[in-house]
Amino acid sequence: MNINELKVGLIGGTGEEGRGLALRWAMAGAQVAIGSRTLERAKEAADELNPHVPNNPIGYGENHEVVAQSEFVLLTVPFAHAAATLDGLKGDFREGAILLDITVPVSFEQGRVRYTELPEGSASEHLLKHLPEAVPLVAAFKTEPAHALVDPKEKLDCDALIASDNKEAKARVLEAVKFIDGLRPVDAGFLYSARTLERMTVLAIGINRRYKIKTACYRVMGLP
Amino acid sequence: MNINELKVGLIGGTGEEGRGLALRWAMAGAQVAIGSRTLERAKEAADELNPHVPNNPIGYGENHEVVAQSEFVLLTVPFAHAAATLDGLKGDFREGAILLDITVPVSFEQGRVRYTELPEGSASEHLLKHLPEAVPLVAAFKTEPAHALVDPKEKLDCDALIASDNKEAKARVLEAVKFIDGLRPVDAGFLYSARTLERMTVLAIGINRRYKIKTACYRVMGLP
Repeated sequence: MNINELKVGLIGGTGEEGRGLALRWAMAGAQVAIGSRTLERAKEAADELNPHVPNNPIGYGENHEVVAQSEFVLLTVPFAHAAATLDGLKGDFREGAILLDITVPVSFEQGRVRYTELPEGSASEHLLKHLPEAVPLVAAFKTEPAHALVDPKEKLDCDALIASDNKEAKARVLEAVKFIDGLRPVDAGFLYSARTLERMTVLAIGINRRYKIKTACYRVMGLP
Repeated sequence: MNINELKVGLIGGTGEEGRGLALRWAMAGAQVAIGSRTLERAKEAADELNPHVPNNPIGYGENHEVVAQSEFVLLTVPFAHAAATLDGLKGDFREGAILLDITVPVSFEQGRVRYTELPEGSASEHLLKHLPEAVPLVAAFKTEPAHALVDPKEKLDCDALIASDNKEAKARVLEAVKFIDGLRPVDAGFLYSARTLERMTVLAIGINRRYKIKTACYRVMGLP
């Protein structure tokens, strides 16, 4: 694939995870646009990042516009807003678009980080019904630490575990992630695996706290 | 701690995971005994392993005897037999014993590997009520690949994610695991994390299948 032709748009891309992924895709050479509910916030986020990618500047727009133009649509809003956000964008996806779901439902109970159990088993499975049928959903970047992604000086050293029930969409994402320096794509199987990946994020948050770090992530050992 | 004084016993230690952990603890210098329901099977397993650890031979016995002598009691029976096995051994634990629960409830549905959901959230939490109150339970080695453990020529390169609600017991296990070559102990927090660790095993089984390997395991990146 030609990474320079890949259009990546971020729904709610103004948070740390969204900005971090926007930056890393731009560094990889993709055409990136940050979406937000307001043009001003999207512009702010892009302006903050663009000094780091002078040769491949990040665009911006309202979520609707960004979704309409992107092949990879990254859902980077907090999980609490994810379903409503998707509902509002249902008509905007272009043909061939793939939704990359980054959300993780997390709560804090008595100071302890907990995974929010959902009837469907995971956020990704929960969000399936909020997408047009033609748009495949790929669980991706769930375990990537926002704090590392957003800092261009931070060398990434993590696996990107990718899960989906749509083989072609998953293969496309696995292929594209190879262009991001320091992230190795790993096929995590069916979307069912999102149940594990989301919990691994919660575990990583706990490890960050206990070890007083901010960038815990995972590598699968033993791969060829 | 003096690893040579640590007594490690394996309940149902004749399976691949049990033999593998027996071998690695013996290689680390601990005093190891393999337990089984029958003395013959326990002896067979020890006899098979002992050529690899001529200077620190592995003992054997019936489960009752082995539990009575061990500080670290490793539960390495298949999950389906775990609760009944513990019920039958309740009176046998010595003072200061710690149960290390290795079990992962896995099933196969239409050829796909699935995690068996339990009302308590994880196998480890489920098994708590089958232990005497005085015996702390530590979830350990859930994600270690049996196939790698049992082969003395295989160099391990995995993290051992350790979780428990009992701080002292967890600290003791974290300390002891340092002596096993190639396994880095990582504090995975409260026993609640067993929900994640057990699912990570299921994910690793799927990765093994997709990548045609046998020893997928995990490392946490970013630790100090």
